[in-house]
Amino acid sequence: MIMTFDLLAGATTGPRAGLLRAPHGDVPTPVFMPVGTQATVKTLTPDELAAMGVPIVLANTYHLYLRPGAEVVARLGGLHKFMGWPRPILTDSGGFQVFSLGHLRRVSDDGVLFKSHVDGSEHFFSPELVMATQELLGADIVMALDECAPPEATYDYAQAAMTRTHRWAERCRAAQRRGDQALFGIVQGGMFADLRQESAQTLAALDFPGYGIGGLSVGEAKEVTWRMLDITIERLPPDRPRYLMGVGSPEDILAAVAHGVDMMDCVLPTRIARNGALIVRTGRLNIKSPQYTWDERPIEEGCGCYTCQHFSRAYLRHLFKAEEILGLRLMTIHNVYFLVELMRQIRQAILEGRFAQFQAEFLAGFQPTDPAVQAANKARWLARARQSPDHIEIQT
Amino acid sequence: MIMTFDLLAGATTGPRAGLLRAPHGDVPTPVFMPVGTQATVKTLTPDELAAMGVPIVLANTYHLYLRPGAEVVARLGGLHKFMGWPRPILTDSGGFQVFSLGHLRRVSDDGVLFKSHVDGSEHFFSPELVMATQELLGADIVMALDECAPPEATYDYAQAAMTRTHRWAERCRAAQRRGDQALFGIVQGGMFADLRQESAQTLAALDFPGYGIGGLSVGEAKEVTWRMLDITIERLPPDRPRYLMGVGSPEDILAAVAHGVDMMDCVLPTRIARNGALIVRTGRLNIKSPQYTWDERPIEEGCGCYTCQHFSRAYLRHLFKAEEILGLRLMTIHNVYFLVELMRQIRQAILEGRFAQFQAEFLAGFQPTDPAVQAANKARWLARARQSPDHIEIQT
Repeated sequence: MIMTFDLLAGATTGPRAGLLRAPHGDVPTPVFMPVGTQATVKTLTPDELAAMGVPIVLANTYHLYLRPGAEVVARLGGLHKFMGWPRPILTDSGGFQVFSLGHLRRVSDDGVLFKSHVDGSEHFFSPELVMATQELLGADIVMALDECAPPEATYDYAQAAMTRTHRWAERCRAAQRRGDQALFGIVQGGMFADLRQESAQTLAALDFPGYGIGGLSVGEAKEVTWRMLDITIERLPPDRPRYLMGVGSPEDILAAVAHGVDMMDCVLPTRIARNGALIVRTGRLNIKSPQYTWDERPIEEGCGCYTCQHFSRAYLRHLFKAEEILGLRLMTIHNVYFLVELMRQIRQAILEGRFAQFQAEFLAGFQPTDPAVQAANKARWLARARQSPDHIEIQT
Repeated sequence: MIMTFDLLAGATTGPRAGLLRAPHGDVPTPVFMPVGTQATVKTLTPDELAAMGVPIVLANTYHLYLRPGAEVVARLGGLHKFMGWPRPILTDSGGFQVFSLGHLRRVSDDGVLFKSHVDGSEHFFSPELVMATQELLGADIVMALDECAPPEATYDYAQAAMTRTHRWAERCRAAQRRGDQALFGIVQGGMFADLRQESAQTLAALDFPGYGIGGLSVGEAKEVTWRMLDITIERLPPDRPRYLMGVGSPEDILAAVAHGVDMMDCVLPTRIARNGALIVRTGRLNIKSPQYTWDERPIEEGCGCYTCQHFSRAYLRHLFKAEEILGLRLMTIHNVYFLVELMRQIRQAILEGRFAQFQAEFLAGFQPTDPAVQAANKARWLARARQSPDHIEIQT
């Protein structure tokens, strides 16, 4: 079975609700996909993800190609069986890692030569190899190899990367052998309106079953993100899912949905959990704060997650301060559950025609992290990722 | 309710099966108690422990006194509520940590002055303070403050430490205020037969509801352990549970049970799991080994643990090599389950009068870790513990 996508509410622009049917199950959209970089959503079991109602997870081709190797995963029955996750999976193409994390050695029209962060060995990703690798992994949705230009790229650089991305998208499709994986093309074009427009039109003409929107949320100002997103989305076919890569804060999820995005992923909820930052209705709660030492309340009153049902802020703070792994687990559960529940409420609001009201009410009570602080955090995180990509999650 | 202990099979010496009834539930004996140093059995939730059939866990007074502080735990409803574990808990007295991990500053008949490994601050443990602390924590079973002499201690040293331990045991009992906690005395006496004999007799005369046997399994030869244990046990009242502190390998558990021990604890199953060492019927399986790269079998065929029911050796090896927290969780589950299941089988064998046969059959198929390697591992671990006691578990 190949993927199908039914739009249940919404049109080309504005909020949409749909149902994506993949070989391993249904995915109600809009959807947030937790990231399982190395075939595990960090700290959690598949059972815990399923219990929270997570319909789909993402895994990183770059990491799995290097370790344990796609052949190992294939011989063990594919990614679903390997990691014990029976529901849909999306794998990225590895492009973002290779281009963003400093492993890049040389890019040509053929592909990209890079060094492994594990052992320094040289590897070459071509569109054909990336497709073969993703076919060995066996996800429901696979992504074309793209070149992600940095936000400060010049027009010429962004144009060259975009043109290469288009050629690679065609080669990826030509290289596809399996009939049970949906291949998404990825729109690029940097921060330039005419390039974004050209990229969306070119990929739309190639008639992919879905579209990734890459090269956004990589450090540019938020206004630029949403402007580039609008230019892109207007030119994508309304009956195909749009996947905005790398978005995951509540306020950005709401904005992306308002602009017509169907799918998102981000390491944010899992990464910040391991730093003691918890997403709550009012913003963020930092469990390290001394004010929680004696606090017997759950992270958030009324939250239905396992952690809030069983443990106090004081206990979580103790676990975090004492560097106990259980603390990282319990805080990850809360953050992932928060976003799953937020997506459920968002979808319901869209289906009932009251999304704008829902968004306004949510944002009225929610204090987003200062964009400047967010940008600084992300820059620090990317710098650390370049040092040791294993110990942290890698954004897609 | 105070604790009761019913002996169902066995007498003074030799294997015994019993039922210990504590305020928070029943504990079938012989029992292995997983260690939850900082109010968490490392990496696991209370639900996971309960699902495996763990009847009782241990927590460390030294660690909880320093962080988060016994008053915090008490204000949050006591240790059971704080950590979400409704079944029985035993807290040690903190003596082992203070005497063994190099935090010791000065010992006197009053008590022991030591430095916190967390912030270097000075603290003083007296029998009275240790009792007050354990009453704030609220475990079902609490231990008297003891002085644990090192295995190489001279006769005079061991005798002085023993005499002090006896005086502290009396003071602990005099200091007891709560009526719902069973206070165990701890036998010391180093590696000297007449001291062990004297210590057991002295403490037996004090009529404690149970007895810890301390200062063994601290680096001495195994023959010495069992000889000292026999001398001790012969002089303890048969109707009281005997708790051999710090024993946890399958072969040592079997030997201890054969010698009449009812309770044991050790960080071994949880600590070695985090190093990739898995306890199996034939001995140990090191998940790091390249031979498991493609191995789709569970850790152990026929094992009923969650990990073996869901994941392959290849996946566990991948998680371990990729330094994923989920790997530490899944391997910890297997090792704890192995010991829980072993204890269940041991108890059944005792009740059916075939323990010797069970032990012989188990050992015929089991390759214990070389005692010299074990001793070297333990020495390395103690040295590391002195450096950073948080990051590893502390033996009681």
